[in-house]
Amino acid sequence: MNRTPSALDAIKVVMVNTSHPGNIGSAARAMRVMGLYNLTLVSPKKFPSKEATALASGALDVLENAQVTETLSEAIQDCHYVFGTSARSRHINKEEKSIEAGALQIHEILREKPEAKIAILFGTERTGLTNEEVDLCQALFYIPTENNYNSLNIAAAIQIIAYELRRQNVIDDRLEKVKKPHYVGELPATDEAFESFIQHFEQSLIETQFLDPANPKHLMRKIRHLYKKAELTQEEINILRGALTASQKAIAKDQ
Amino acid sequence: MNRTPSALDAIKVVMVNTSHPGNIGSAARAMRVMGLYNLTLVSPKKFPSKEATALASGALDVLENAQVTETLSEAIQDCHYVFGTSARSRHINKEEKSIEAGALQIHEILREKPEAKIAILFGTERTGLTNEEVDLCQALFYIPTENNYNSLNIAAAIQIIAYELRRQNVIDDRLEKVKKPHYVGELPATDEAFESFIQHFEQSLIETQFLDPANPKHLMRKIRHLYKKAELTQEEINILRGALTASQKAIAKDQ
Repeated sequence: MNRTPSALDAIKVVMVNTSHPGNIGSAARAMRVMGLYNLTLVSPKKFPSKEATALASGALDVLENAQVTETLSEAIQDCHYVFGTSARSRHINKEEKSIEAGALQIHEILREKPEAKIAILFGTERTGLTNEEVDLCQALFYIPTENNYNSLNIAAAIQIIAYELRRQNVIDDRLEKVKKPHYVGELPATDEAFESFIQHFEQSLIETQFLDPANPKHLMRKIRHLYKKAELTQEEINILRGALTASQKAIAKDQ
Repeated sequence: MNRTPSALDAIKVVMVNTSHPGNIGSAARAMRVMGLYNLTLVSPKKFPSKEATALASGALDVLENAQVTETLSEAIQDCHYVFGTSARSRHINKEEKSIEAGALQIHEILREKPEAKIAILFGTERTGLTNEEVDLCQALFYIPTENNYNSLNIAAAIQIIAYELRRQNVIDDRLEKVKKPHYVGELPATDEAFESFIQHFEQSLIETQFLDPANPKHLMRKIRHLYKKAELTQEEINILRGALTASQKAIAKDQ
């Protein structure tokens, strides 16, 4: 694309199982006007569509370059950070923060780790993200709304989040002129590497009979959560997988 | 209206000569979700309408209470401050500021003069406010957008401005309780419990020969670091130690 690269290019908006094609078009327009170009559609009900094209207005490039995937894990496999969005309290063990705090966190990540890839997930219009989808996220962002009415249209929610990301990016650009980044942090491993590790862990728990696949309860969910909190790097995953492999060999040797 | 009064009640959104009735409905929804209740329609092409009602979703109260006037001067006659909105630079002798600066100005006004009434004007979808309408304003607010594309839908513009007004109102209003976080953070385990876990882990790594006590390198230091980052709770330590014990038993059983 013939335009100046921006910190916002690190961000992809992921719409999961969107029902109304018009919302995809409005979302593309909402993104484009704030300088977000990367849209991923996970199993949309209808795409491409006339409705989306009509509502995208001048943002056809965002629609045309949209990535379409079958599954959410495909959509986020190259991402180092995955954040969900939620209109309501989920009453689950996951950090929730306002989009203002969330955008600040994203810009802090990008300042320290400019090569990070970040996904922001939006669930279906009616019910939002499922618990399984939330499990894939580091944290959830909410948009503060009037107490008794939180009926935000999905494209309106994307509009606000895109605005907030851009607003803080502009502030960041101003700061950048004063202060150069001094610390380059390590990236967490990609989602794909993380998931392979979790599968490896699960397999070894089955081998030691700590996990009963017939009655798994919430064990893997809890384990996934505790390692998500750690923001494991690739090197750390290599260490943990090395330890798992050593343990598996020690068990197999004597059988 | 049976609700807590808010500083935002001082603000009315004035839509001038709106062409598409659907935009009036979407605007009502965008306002309502951010706690703006006062909508004035100056000579709308069509109102009331099915389209507006459908798109207002749960914000029918905003539509039903909307004031409809023939002229702009009627709409703003009780207002002390009138601000315009503009998607583009007008090259006219009128102060222009970002909506972020504009919302700050509005909250400064309301802090000093709580009885002030404030209007924010939105022109037609195609051409915005006329020069004569701009002449009635103290200043113009613009929404910063991507340079080569400023095609903001009017309801999306109202959504962003309503969000920004609410965001700064929440910061501003010291009496309002900060939204209670849904996430009640669990305490990390005590240092004692953490160290016991690390020792247990080290012991099992020696048993599987992944760790050579004669040449430990930095392995335990890295493992300690990665689990420190996770801020493990007592329950999570119990899970991990359970998995370690199961693995140790599986190895011992066959020896």
